[in-house]
Amino acid sequence: MIVIGCDIGGMSIKSALVKENGEFIKKFRLPIDHSLSQEDMIHALAKQINEEIDALSIDKSEIKGIGIGCPGAVNTVTGYCEFSGNLSWNMLPICYLLSADTGLPARICNDANAAMLGEAKFGAGKDYSNLVLITLGTGVGGGIYLDGKLYEGVEGKGGELGHVVIEKDGRPCTCGLHGCLEAYASATALIKRSKESMMEHKDSKMWEFCEGDIEKADGRTAFECAKLGDKAAIDVVNEYEDYLALGIMNFCNIFRPEAILLGGGVSAQKEYLTNAIEERLEKVSYGFKRTPKVKILVTALGNDAGVLGAAALFLN
Amino acid sequence: MIVIGCDIGGMSIKSALVKENGEFIKKFRLPIDHSLSQEDMIHALAKQINEEIDALSIDKSEIKGIGIGCPGAVNTVTGYCEFSGNLSWNMLPICYLLSADTGLPARICNDANAAMLGEAKFGAGKDYSNLVLITLGTGVGGGIYLDGKLYEGVEGKGGELGHVVIEKDGRPCTCGLHGCLEAYASATALIKRSKESMMEHKDSKMWEFCEGDIEKADGRTAFECAKLGDKAAIDVVNEYEDYLALGIMNFCNIFRPEAILLGGGVSAQKEYLTNAIEERLEKVSYGFKRTPKVKILVTALGNDAGVLGAAALFLN
Repeated sequence: MIVIGCDIGGMSIKSALVKENGEFIKKFRLPIDHSLSQEDMIHALAKQINEEIDALSIDKSEIKGIGIGCPGAVNTVTGYCEFSGNLSWNMLPICYLLSADTGLPARICNDANAAMLGEAKFGAGKDYSNLVLITLGTGVGGGIYLDGKLYEGVEGKGGELGHVVIEKDGRPCTCGLHGCLEAYASATALIKRSKESMMEHKDSKMWEFCEGDIEKADGRTAFECAKLGDKAAIDVVNEYEDYLALGIMNFCNIFRPEAILLGGGVSAQKEYLTNAIEERLEKVSYGFKRTPKVKILVTALGNDAGVLGAAALFLN
Repeated sequence: MIVIGCDIGGMSIKSALVKENGEFIKKFRLPIDHSLSQEDMIHALAKQINEEIDALSIDKSEIKGIGIGCPGAVNTVTGYCEFSGNLSWNMLPICYLLSADTGLPARICNDANAAMLGEAKFGAGKDYSNLVLITLGTGVGGGIYLDGKLYEGVEGKGGELGHVVIEKDGRPCTCGLHGCLEAYASATALIKRSKESMMEHKDSKMWEFCEGDIEKADGRTAFECAKLGDKAAIDVVNEYEDYLALGIMNFCNIFRPEAILLGGGVSAQKEYLTNAIEERLEKVSYGFKRTPKVKILVTALGNDAGVLGAAALFLN
């Protein structure tokens, strides 16, 4: 049996024909064409899918369906992308259009949920039944996988783990609230704090790392300089890890999952980050002495997580 | 088909034989006898269950099993109560002992989870598939019901919704952490703030309500005096509702459930409380404009929720 997964991004739509075991049959990609109407963009995707199926001489009866991971607000009941800021999409009936053009059933979910499902089925979470994914990128995204199933909430609009307030009246968040985890644990927040620290500490190694240009500061700057023993960088990283660990502790107490997966740019720090988080959880974790520990892991599938997870919407 | 539910409390064990539709066949109660060993307390419960079954001339083959809701830390895999502070129980194999004495299968869950399941199956949540329960009592307990099933986490140790930090380095919590929802939204926290306000405002109507004795202040004091227009009481209630709404907003963003149920002593304020929370959620709720609203409801089953939910561990 074959499934198709499509991971819609700001620049392109990454798709693939996938076997039940997660093995890729064929990957293909369609650049986002902003000159097209939103509907025509989906027609173009359907056309590409039909062509790829034909080129491989696959009978459509062998294909179970098309799963879509989409950024912004999706509605899993209606199959619409209701709103996507980056793509300027609004009330776009993606599943309806794809099904009409391909004759295949289609299902949609949020992009972070697709990544969660991909990692749970085929990646870092494949040995576990209860998982939480936190993506540390431009924002902080989340996915929830419980008792062996993706949990998405009403209309697929749950799992907004970046918008859990951990500090009442705290830092302003892009969502309009204050004190959200995203305002402390996103790569964006980390970079902002790194730059602030650089302005306060002209002797910090972070300047050297950025070749004297503060605009070159990125999500690695503070971490790499902390590893070199730079005091200012260590302070930035410690604060970042304190807040992230607090957010993660909350998810431990809420879900008590087997593992929490970290994805997104900052998770490239791998064990350097996960060890620091686990150390903090050791100290602060709520519970009686036999409360099971939660493993902190990094994602394993990289850019393939979204496509595989979208495809897995048709694997049960 | 018949199921048995047992709701273990600090003073007594409330039990019942229950029909599949939640109808009570017979309720019975066993006082906690602190002179007995923990094992003998369970033997006494089993004896009572056997006697009640005999008295009703019910054939044991008609009984599907015994569900137990237990305070403290339970292990749903082993069937143990691992620790209960109030009862001074430690590593007590409740399910094993009950099954051995009655010949019936037994399952255990945390008492708040039992209340969640009871309300979801037979109470305020019976029309919904995705629910969160928050109990506002001595502490803040929680239960999670997703996609039509109780979610308990590894070993049944999830759902600790009172120990989600909403204010980093905030008020000390009984659990040892700082800034937990419980430290702001429990009846205990409300009473503490009411008393503090009374000490600051000698002219507050709260003094009259307490007949001049601050020790008579309880979870109703501030609410009832706020309804009379007392400024100090209004401030206490506003602050209480601000924090509670923040905690609830977090659960909306995480779970996007159909409804959140409020139980425990403070929920006796019913619409006066739920309207105030819904108003606040209107203002702060994260999300795009079509994000579905979450209903805020109070529990409906009162003291029966735990027994019915425990029984429902054998209803699927």
